[in-house]
Amino acid sequence: MKSQATSRERLLEAASELFYRDGVNIGVDALCKAAGVSKKSMYQLFRSKDEVIAESLAARGPYYNALLLPSPDDERPPRDRILAVFERQDELAAHDDYYGCPFVATAIELKNPEHPGSVVARHFKQALTDFFRAELIRGGADDPDTAAIQLTMVFDGASSRSVVRSQPLRGVGVQMAALVLEAAGLRAEHLAGHAH
Amino acid sequence: MKSQATSRERLLEAASELFYRDGVNIGVDALCKAAGVSKKSMYQLFRSKDEVIAESLAARGPYYNALLLPSPDDERPPRDRILAVFERQDELAAHDDYYGCPFVATAIELKNPEHPGSVVARHFKQALTDFFRAELIRGGADDPDTAAIQLTMVFDGASSRSVVRSQPLRGVGVQMAALVLEAAGLRAEHLAGHAH
Repeated sequence: MKSQATSRERLLEAASELFYRDGVNIGVDALCKAAGVSKKSMYQLFRSKDEVIAESLAARGPYYNALLLPSPDDERPPRDRILAVFERQDELAAHDDYYGCPFVATAIELKNPEHPGSVVARHFKQALTDFFRAELIRGGADDPDTAAIQLTMVFDGASSRSVVRSQPLRGVGVQMAALVLEAAGLRAEHLAGHAH
Repeated sequence: MKSQATSRERLLEAASELFYRDGVNIGVDALCKAAGVSKKSMYQLFRSKDEVIAESLAARGPYYNALLLPSPDDERPPRDRILAVFERQDELAAHDDYYGCPFVATAIELKNPEHPGSVVARHFKQALTDFFRAELIRGGADDPDTAAIQLTMVFDGASSRSVVRSQPLRGVGVQMAALVLEAAGLRAEHLAGHAH
């Protein structure tokens, strides 16, 4: 049992890395080779490659979001906690191994909203929107539902820009998030006043 | 010569459709089958599949942009001409056969900014930004360069949202574009005044 668990872990680890770097269309042979697992073992552990796509994204998703979101004990005001996501995106996008939001990339590559991998992608994008919404409510936003969707769109727009141009974002996402926050009534001064 | 030209056209047509619908990773066999062209003919016409990817996107790009952009003889004021792009996107995204912006999808799938297909994708995304910028200047925007990038990000964010959620956009892109335009100084009233 122990060696099966290890094969599973190695497969999920290799899958999440290769699918992000090369796309979900890489072959099962390349995946098994990278994981050091036989195809036979893979099909004993997973019913299909589609299941590997969904399971590996589900396993890696919390890590991707943890890279972006401020920790719960970060006590800065909501506006700063929201902008921190875009500052972090700016840093990530400056690296050569950034290929955009892994959830959006998976959904775009699969081209099928019913695919289990697309369902997982939708779940984690919703988690980001939910984070924005909770912070917006805490910050007294006028319309937190709309602003949370807009912030998610800024994030995805900046991610697409980064992939298409392959250049650093240089704050375009942070600036635009600040514009959305201002329109929602979360201004820098206002929140500085609320922080204490 | 005539039958070679026809094979080329059939290949480019089939390629642009299949690459958009199924992704650029579909095999050469499937592509040739759909085009009704032998693999041998394909490799006489194109040096590689990569060249087919780039050429088919270059051939289809003007059509994609024409779907979105108002015609040059559409004499509405700049703000309306810009918002028309987002209204059109809203309509396109409501269809089942919408898989997001084809240029962004190609760049995300290729994962290589130097690939000739990524270069073509970048060119056409820049054309959209250039359209926004020209209209913003005509409308007297405060900072047309920044606002043009922001509008492109709204467009790509809405496109990603459409793919991830697989639901109609219901005006979220149009609303957010209006927010960017207002921040840039292009207000509905202001422009109504300029229209005559």
